[in-house]
Amino acid sequence: MQMDTSVTSATPPAVPLDATQRAARQQEVVAALLKVLPARSVLWRDEAVTPFECDGLTAYRQRPLAVALPETHEQVGAVLAACHALQVPVVARGAGTGLSGGALPHAEGVTLSLARLTRIVRIDPLARTAVVECGVRNLAISEAAAQHGLYYAPDPSSQIACSIGGNVAENAGGVHCLKYGLTVHNVLRIRGFTIEGEVLELGSGALDSPGLDLLAAFIGSEGLLGVATEITVRLLPKPQVARCLLASFDDIGKAGDAVAAIIGAGLIPAGLEMMDRPMTVAVEDFVHAGYDLSAAAILLVESDGSPEEVEEEIARLAAVLQTAGATRLDVSESEAQRLRFWSGRKNAFPATGRISPDYLCMDASIPRKQLATMLHAIEGMQQTHGLRCVNVFHAGDGNMHPLILFNANEPDQLKRAEAFGNEILRTAVSLGGSITGEHGVGVEKLDAMCVQFTDSERQQMLAFKAAFDPQGLLNPGKAIPMLSRCGETRQAPGGAMGRTPALEAALKDLPRY
Amino acid sequence: MQMDTSVTSATPPAVPLDATQRAARQQEVVAALLKVLPARSVLWRDEAVTPFECDGLTAYRQRPLAVALPETHEQVGAVLAACHALQVPVVARGAGTGLSGGALPHAEGVTLSLARLTRIVRIDPLARTAVVECGVRNLAISEAAAQHGLYYAPDPSSQIACSIGGNVAENAGGVHCLKYGLTVHNVLRIRGFTIEGEVLELGSGALDSPGLDLLAAFIGSEGLLGVATEITVRLLPKPQVARCLLASFDDIGKAGDAVAAIIGAGLIPAGLEMMDRPMTVAVEDFVHAGYDLSAAAILLVESDGSPEEVEEEIARLAAVLQTAGATRLDVSESEAQRLRFWSGRKNAFPATGRISPDYLCMDASIPRKQLATMLHAIEGMQQTHGLRCVNVFHAGDGNMHPLILFNANEPDQLKRAEAFGNEILRTAVSLGGSITGEHGVGVEKLDAMCVQFTDSERQQMLAFKAAFDPQGLLNPGKAIPMLSRCGETRQAPGGAMGRTPALEAALKDLPRY
Repeated sequence: MQMDTSVTSATPPAVPLDATQRAARQQEVVAALLKVLPARSVLWRDEAVTPFECDGLTAYRQRPLAVALPETHEQVGAVLAACHALQVPVVARGAGTGLSGGALPHAEGVTLSLARLTRIVRIDPLARTAVVECGVRNLAISEAAAQHGLYYAPDPSSQIACSIGGNVAENAGGVHCLKYGLTVHNVLRIRGFTIEGEVLELGSGALDSPGLDLLAAFIGSEGLLGVATEITVRLLPKPQVARCLLASFDDIGKAGDAVAAIIGAGLIPAGLEMMDRPMTVAVEDFVHAGYDLSAAAILLVESDGSPEEVEEEIARLAAVLQTAGATRLDVSESEAQRLRFWSGRKNAFPATGRISPDYLCMDASIPRKQLATMLHAIEGMQQTHGLRCVNVFHAGDGNMHPLILFNANEPDQLKRAEAFGNEILRTAVSLGGSITGEHGVGVEKLDAMCVQFTDSERQQMLAFKAAFDPQGLLNPGKAIPMLSRCGETRQAPGGAMGRTPALEAALKDLPRY
Repeated sequence: MQMDTSVTSATPPAVPLDATQRAARQQEVVAALLKVLPARSVLWRDEAVTPFECDGLTAYRQRPLAVALPETHEQVGAVLAACHALQVPVVARGAGTGLSGGALPHAEGVTLSLARLTRIVRIDPLARTAVVECGVRNLAISEAAAQHGLYYAPDPSSQIACSIGGNVAENAGGVHCLKYGLTVHNVLRIRGFTIEGEVLELGSGALDSPGLDLLAAFIGSEGLLGVATEITVRLLPKPQVARCLLASFDDIGKAGDAVAAIIGAGLIPAGLEMMDRPMTVAVEDFVHAGYDLSAAAILLVESDGSPEEVEEEIARLAAVLQTAGATRLDVSESEAQRLRFWSGRKNAFPATGRISPDYLCMDASIPRKQLATMLHAIEGMQQTHGLRCVNVFHAGDGNMHPLILFNANEPDQLKRAEAFGNEILRTAVSLGGSITGEHGVGVEKLDAMCVQFTDSERQQMLAFKAAFDPQGLLNPGKAIPMLSRCGETRQAPGGAMGRTPALEAALKDLPRY
């Protein structure tokens, strides 16, 4: 697609400031912030901004010029207007639990922490909606809605801590998104501000809203288009009952094919998760969930609804799983047992921390029917890269989280782990999948974007970004790589994300329009 | 919002060609089309292009330079590439049933008729999806899905004739969209072409797709961003049973308030339509639906689902309606009776044609709680403008279709009808509503866009359009007015859409963020 040439203006300032210049700039920026915020809301001393130097992707760290902690919507708008006037980059930050570095500060920018906007504005039980400020924790919405028998469905693993604003920025998913959708399917309206500090309103409380429908494009845009401060979410009635089915398989490929068979039979379970044996062994040792350690892989399949619906669905699921070669089936007979089944899955990441000093969490998505192929490919990659990989993931929607185990104290291992990860992402793309399922691109997957998208596709994204933020001040250097970066990536040697001749060949064979 | 200044390049060529220049241009364009299409697929003689000179908004007519009738996806791409190479405007056209002139030809452009792409590619009963070409009729999808007990929910009145591609362009609604959503809620994926003839793919068969989510922004963009050729829609299981409740009210305001009360009680009927007495009288004379002609207004309320669900919902609906002051309630006791209840609503437009030589169909949307205010305001406007207005509309989602009756043979009447219509739209905006609910902006509501949106909002839309189509070749002069046009509109006298001081005052009192 031929593009508007002005998009190059979205490039952030290229030459870094030296120490003296930086100090002067910091003074200027802090002075501007103090004009619109109380002193308690502006941090700039090293010790004060250090807690903000990274998000959940701790491998990347950077201190910003200053951290702004507004307490009202108006202050958010005023901070943005002040930064725009000074042409300072702005990185919005929720709870800082993101896994792809989307909230990594900019060395010459302001980190706009939204952690103090934590008001639940309104819950409307008849309309089944909640209006909340962006800093409200994901789980706090469900807690507040519980008195009406309602809850907010998307449930990322970090839901105790992560904020709804961050969920919007990353289009967060979770265990239940197979049946109930991602953040984008559960948000009705967003109010916030543009980089100029002007009010931005997307979506509505009604079926549709006037003008272009940019709500879905905003959700998952990783802070590149604007800053959301008030979010209206859809609430759902809590299911009367939920039961969990635990299925064992003697081959990881069979487990993958079973997932495809379930969906192929027209069944949409409330959750459909997979763990391989190395993962169940690590977990079982930690939380004693009662997993079958003789299985090469297990599936956790959840059914929810009325007691009659659940009974019928569990029966259909069991039949499909048996046909698919399950060697053992257990159905939870009590809520306590159901929670025990899930306790293993929920503690998979900390359990991994117990068996390896470090791990790299990947976030590839692939078509479900390719699960077996991908799992076998990862088995092979363990030999190539000389590192172990354990698997736990949202199998139902093909969103994999291979955890590559390594020891960062041996520098060679980090490099090998990254090469391993890149090979997983390249393979995902070649199988018709995507480099990210729910964690976002951030800084972590910038190079992978060069594999996933062509120059013209990325140019289109940059043009869209420029329509909101022509100077490229919002979260520069994240999510969408500049064309020049992809040029360099492609010339990089084997370990990097460049398209190899083999990958080019594989991509050519994909079904295309 | 500060905008990319390059958007002015989206302006279509301003100076019209004279007759000789036009003939030369036509020859050039036809020659280019004949290089990529068979002779049977290129029309340019006056008698051949005349059937394409308008869509359902017959007040505007224009013959294009040529009409292209591609028969394959590849031909659509080739036509676009050819037009792009010659910098010729392109107006895509589905079945031509649109009511806002979105498919009105461009005098110096090509009309790209998609009427020959009518293949139902695939129905997947387990995934509950259908993949269809853009020229497939809306109703043909449900007909093809019926063997699996499935159907496509959005049902515009023109569903026998209108195409799914046109539905996508206008984000079509219908009687059932209150419960089942508009086109945007029922389309999963779009494949098509950019103005350069490059492949465009938005959405996916999965929960989400990589990159920016532009599917929702594309749906309803009235042919300004690209041309969709293949559409994947969601299918729903046909409800086991449906029943219709007919409620009479002795005051139109009470009927409006009853609608708000139903939704306020947490009930979402499958359909919730209102007709006022002048409308029921016209209809009853035509189809004998059995309406209560003593009522100032009637509501048609549909419930669908399992027999138990419907019985429970009908009981709750009846209770709310009685409390809201209904003077009579009838519930359909058979499918034949239900269809007879609906026959009046479905024939409202032809029935209006029998009582008035001409009518103007408006398409304003307002918050449901403002229905009574709006209906009383329209009663008053009949006096001011000396014309009658009958009302039939989707009350449940606040989408009104006032039909202004006039006689075009008396030129003064058309002008008065337009002034009446403009007053309705201005009032809708001042009540917090929108100038269009489901018919789109097209050419009809360009001036009204100046009332609904500020300069900076329209500039944002133009920048977004420019990211897809920098030269402004796709359907120029539609949907988004140029800033200069709104400048002129605002200076125009009373009858036009300019914001009057009274309206400005009313807008100021609206709850704002």
